[in-house]
Amino acid sequence: MNLILFSQQETLQPLPIEDARAKHILKVLNVEEGCSFDVGQINGPRGKATLRVVSSKTLEFEFDWEATIPELYEIDLLISYCRPQTCRKILQECTSLGVRSMTFFDTEKSEPTYKSSSLWTSRETERLLVRGAEQAFCTQIPKLSRAASLSSVISDLPSHGSRIAMDNYESTEKLTPSRTTSLPVTVAIGGERGWSNLERHILRENEFVLADLGSRVLRTETACIAAVSILRNQL
Amino acid sequence: MNLILFSQQETLQPLPIEDARAKHILKVLNVEEGCSFDVGQINGPRGKATLRVVSSKTLEFEFDWEATIPELYEIDLLISYCRPQTCRKILQECTSLGVRSMTFFDTEKSEPTYKSSSLWTSRETERLLVRGAEQAFCTQIPKLSRAASLSSVISDLPSHGSRIAMDNYESTEKLTPSRTTSLPVTVAIGGERGWSNLERHILRENEFVLADLGSRVLRTETACIAAVSILRNQL
Repeated sequence: MNLILFSQQETLQPLPIEDARAKHILKVLNVEEGCSFDVGQINGPRGKATLRVVSSKTLEFEFDWEATIPELYEIDLLISYCRPQTCRKILQECTSLGVRSMTFFDTEKSEPTYKSSSLWTSRETERLLVRGAEQAFCTQIPKLSRAASLSSVISDLPSHGSRIAMDNYESTEKLTPSRTTSLPVTVAIGGERGWSNLERHILRENEFVLADLGSRVLRTETACIAAVSILRNQL
Repeated sequence: MNLILFSQQETLQPLPIEDARAKHILKVLNVEEGCSFDVGQINGPRGKATLRVVSSKTLEFEFDWEATIPELYEIDLLISYCRPQTCRKILQECTSLGVRSMTFFDTEKSEPTYKSSSLWTSRETERLLVRGAEQAFCTQIPKLSRAASLSSVISDLPSHGSRIAMDNYESTEKLTPSRTTSLPVTVAIGGERGWSNLERHILRENEFVLADLGSRVLRTETACIAAVSILRNQL
């Protein structure tokens, strides 16, 4: 944790001593009464917390918030459901990279069990997003959504901006930062088995450019990191 | 495994039935006698293997090799020893991305135990490189080296090419593809605690440009993938 995040509500009350953050503050950061450390409000400002009171049940802080809130990149990811372990990495690392939203959806070639993983019904996704933001020393959490199909995702997209679909098989060009001249940038990423012909048709009909990252086949989480890194480099 | 790799020596003799690749060919790919699948020779060509004979002890193949060998990117990574689990990811994913070499070395702020991990004395590193190449559907394995210090790594570098050191604290510019106009590109990546002042001095004295990937702090393996993705995008 490079930054310890609290919800706004949590900053208004003492932190229970059994909270994982309390343990981290006392045992890892070795913060003592009167000392301060880096904090952030989820989707709010960064700042400094000073530890004022350590009791047997709680920690009490005094907060000093910065005036500005760091912004996210105007990159929206549309991601086919993948193995839960792959989705965990995408959730955490793409949050660290600073994307604005992630929408996971079902594709024709995706394994049907992936979308019913307990990952999606537990609070684990929220923890992964918070961990990714803490790693990045930032407070902003991307918007996370789930959708039934590519068509339903596309119907919710803004009419302006750039639309790119990563495709190793039928791409017409290499992914380049010049694709980001019109914001926001929507990037669709198929799962390990890629797009069906129907999905490619839907993507093309909806003005997605099919682009690739070169001929080398990357794991889905690596392709996500690579694509976002290239695009945000120009934003 | 998108591609099954063999050493040249291995292609000259039957494959023992207990080899993990034999199990993969029979049980996962469900290859039967007379059927073919994608193969590659480590640091050699790709091709097709046809399964000719399945006996109780071995599999026998007939190989048909392509004429050309896919090349690696002229990117050389110099990486501070990190946690073994981080190094494993870097080894595999940067091989998939197609870097030409990786040299791990000791930095002043690196945890001293990292370099004595069993990872470095087992055959695991080789397996990770092969797995990364198989994932990428490529045959080339990057050259893997280890060095005692930044100075000793630098003394072995070619005099031509571009030199970049990733640094979140004292960078003077953002990492951009224009840095790759002169090849090969050498990219130095400090560990989770970054460079010492002495190391920064050595880097500057040796014409490394200190560059960053933006203000967000990334995990070392994510920073490696991001930096390589941005650089190879222009090569």
